[in-house]
Amino acid sequence: MDAEIIAVGSELLTPFYLDTNSLFLTDRLNALGIEVRFKTVVGDRAEDLGAVLRQGLLRSGLIILTGGLGPTEDDLTRQAVAEVLGRSLHEDPEVRRKIEERLARFGRPMAENNLRQAMLPEGAAWLENKHGTAPGIWIEHDHVLVVLLPGPPGELEAMFDAFCMPRLAQVSQGQRIRTRVYKVVGLPESEVDKRAAAVYKAYTNPATTILAKPGAIEIHLRAHAPSEEQADALLAELGDQIELALGEYIFSARGESLEEVVGMYLVMRQKTLAVAESCSGGLLAERLTQKPGASDYFLGGAICYSNLLKTRLAGVPAPLIEEHGAVSRPVAQAMAEGIRARSGASIGVSTTGIAGPTGGTEKKPVGLVFIALADERGTQVREFRFPGNRERVRLWSTQMALEMIRRRIRDY
Amino acid sequence: MDAEIIAVGSELLTPFYLDTNSLFLTDRLNALGIEVRFKTVVGDRAEDLGAVLRQGLLRSGLIILTGGLGPTEDDLTRQAVAEVLGRSLHEDPEVRRKIEERLARFGRPMAENNLRQAMLPEGAAWLENKHGTAPGIWIEHDHVLVVLLPGPPGELEAMFDAFCMPRLAQVSQGQRIRTRVYKVVGLPESEVDKRAAAVYKAYTNPATTILAKPGAIEIHLRAHAPSEEQADALLAELGDQIELALGEYIFSARGESLEEVVGMYLVMRQKTLAVAESCSGGLLAERLTQKPGASDYFLGGAICYSNLLKTRLAGVPAPLIEEHGAVSRPVAQAMAEGIRARSGASIGVSTTGIAGPTGGTEKKPVGLVFIALADERGTQVREFRFPGNRERVRLWSTQMALEMIRRRIRDY
Repeated sequence: MDAEIIAVGSELLTPFYLDTNSLFLTDRLNALGIEVRFKTVVGDRAEDLGAVLRQGLLRSGLIILTGGLGPTEDDLTRQAVAEVLGRSLHEDPEVRRKIEERLARFGRPMAENNLRQAMLPEGAAWLENKHGTAPGIWIEHDHVLVVLLPGPPGELEAMFDAFCMPRLAQVSQGQRIRTRVYKVVGLPESEVDKRAAAVYKAYTNPATTILAKPGAIEIHLRAHAPSEEQADALLAELGDQIELALGEYIFSARGESLEEVVGMYLVMRQKTLAVAESCSGGLLAERLTQKPGASDYFLGGAICYSNLLKTRLAGVPAPLIEEHGAVSRPVAQAMAEGIRARSGASIGVSTTGIAGPTGGTEKKPVGLVFIALADERGTQVREFRFPGNRERVRLWSTQMALEMIRRRIRDY
Repeated sequence: MDAEIIAVGSELLTPFYLDTNSLFLTDRLNALGIEVRFKTVVGDRAEDLGAVLRQGLLRSGLIILTGGLGPTEDDLTRQAVAEVLGRSLHEDPEVRRKIEERLARFGRPMAENNLRQAMLPEGAAWLENKHGTAPGIWIEHDHVLVVLLPGPPGELEAMFDAFCMPRLAQVSQGQRIRTRVYKVVGLPESEVDKRAAAVYKAYTNPATTILAKPGAIEIHLRAHAPSEEQADALLAELGDQIELALGEYIFSARGESLEEVVGMYLVMRQKTLAVAESCSGGLLAERLTQKPGASDYFLGGAICYSNLLKTRLAGVPAPLIEEHGAVSRPVAQAMAEGIRARSGASIGVSTTGIAGPTGGTEKKPVGLVFIALADERGTQVREFRFPGNRERVRLWSTQMALEMIRRRIRDY
């Protein structure tokens, strides 16, 4: 059974709001082996909602509509759906009583427009709303399930888990979906695809998707089977081959970020880290401290946006900067070694480069970045030319710094 | 002319990703007086994409498809669109050369699958991609404009602003929509709404929306009129009254971030800034260095995640930390004064606190943060108790640090 989700609300067609309910619903549906094939957003216009619903009836086994069940004039989901399905609306006395009770509890009278919320399409069942006045509506129509849910996430989520999940579990005959996400760094997307495609092409289940994310390529596997165990076995079969094909370029097989992986490695090896950042401007430290417990392995460091602070905080000799320039191999090396010495960390890492858009020269163009890693075995300096804008150069500087740390610790 | 947006990508039908490009596109289209009536997400299935596109051709004057233009097997937007429109694909020599040039610049060979990106539907124009290999595609088909854009936001946004906006401005006649965004910090949402509502309730054009964003409350005004000048006049009339009602709590009237405003103030007053961060872990420096030109006023600073580095980099006397604890008023003060002295900056700012989720005690709970600002006039220390999780505590620490800087510089 395939599903589609229709979110109703003109605010969802402005530049300010996204339909986030569909993420929750997709998570729950996938767990039951139900795939979401279409998501649509329409405004508070009966005509548009009707057009999308009519399409849905022709292609989907389950249609979930969210929003537009409120008491106001522009809440028209109930009516528009009844019209498309050719069912009249009638007031349900039990729903009415529930609404009256709820309003009374908050000392509010039953307003005329709350009565709309007690209206049900002929032949529909209603789903109790424990957090609001609008009940959900459940309609079985010519082998298609049409479910109407209130828009506020707190109301929708509680209602879905309490009433829809048990009903859908019965309908969805057993299929289960499981996913695995590999993250790759250090190879271009086309190369990742070439290597992975040689393997995944032979499989339609799991289905494979490759995504270029900022700083990493992701490979998503998605298996469906009658049980979770069988789905996991399918994931393992393809996954093992993908791991072999991409080897050390895979930094995560469970969705962790690169900074999380580096953090785990540092804890595992009982190493500590300090940074001296120029072009990344604090982003490296920021990423390393996002997760709780970072202080177990991250000691801190220096943001050396000025030459003076390269000297004062990271101990870079001023003549070295004068001779080679701040963006240079020797200065990167001195920064990493300097911050390692000052902090007493096992590993010192530095970035210095030209993030742009200004400050580039012919010899030292925007995107030129030196990254150094100093540890007990010596200092490694790498030179990069990152494409893209300031944001990308900064991100890639931190990504490659983290990747250098990950590879170095793996070798210990 | 009404528009619809079709986002293509199986990952957008998982519980993990939302189509955020449509927010950017809606913002730009609205500015041209074009309303978005439908947004649809489909997976990497030619059949599904085709079905939605066929619907779109019957109801919309402008259809924008995003994503699925990459070099991999599952990038099928180009082909699926050509098929629905009944147009064959051919290789465009100029596009091919552009792709080859771009790849060469980064020292990468032209892979077989990059060639797909040089394919254009018959009669289509292409839009240059300055940040990636996939060109955009522009097709005029039976009075419907069909535009294909790459999925990565950096590529899509630059391309849309450079090439689509001028073309669409010619096509879209008549109504213009102009917006203004005020950002407010330091007042709760209910108070902002109370003060603003007293003014904006009298107006339907501009329409007003109040949004609680992380770290700030935003007031969005949206005016439509036959010309930009007339729309701007409407914005000014209501905007002036809102500025009066909220006064100094408004930090931005043009959508700038707080760090941008602080940067402008620092340049204006010819002051420099250095930071010593503990609980914010680099986020404050990271925000201050996001914009080009930050090195004109931001000197850098210290990430003091360990007590040793509070002493070594920010000059905090070790006994002070022992006596009061790292999260304390005296240590915050010493950090701000210490980093100011070491860096020679006009202003030194520090954060120290408990970001959580662990590390809190009864006396010093999660969310307790001290922020200090030192300048020639002395040192100000403020104590905060921020609600919410680690991410929120870190964000609010930097937000209030920036707000303290903004207010201090205003007073100079």
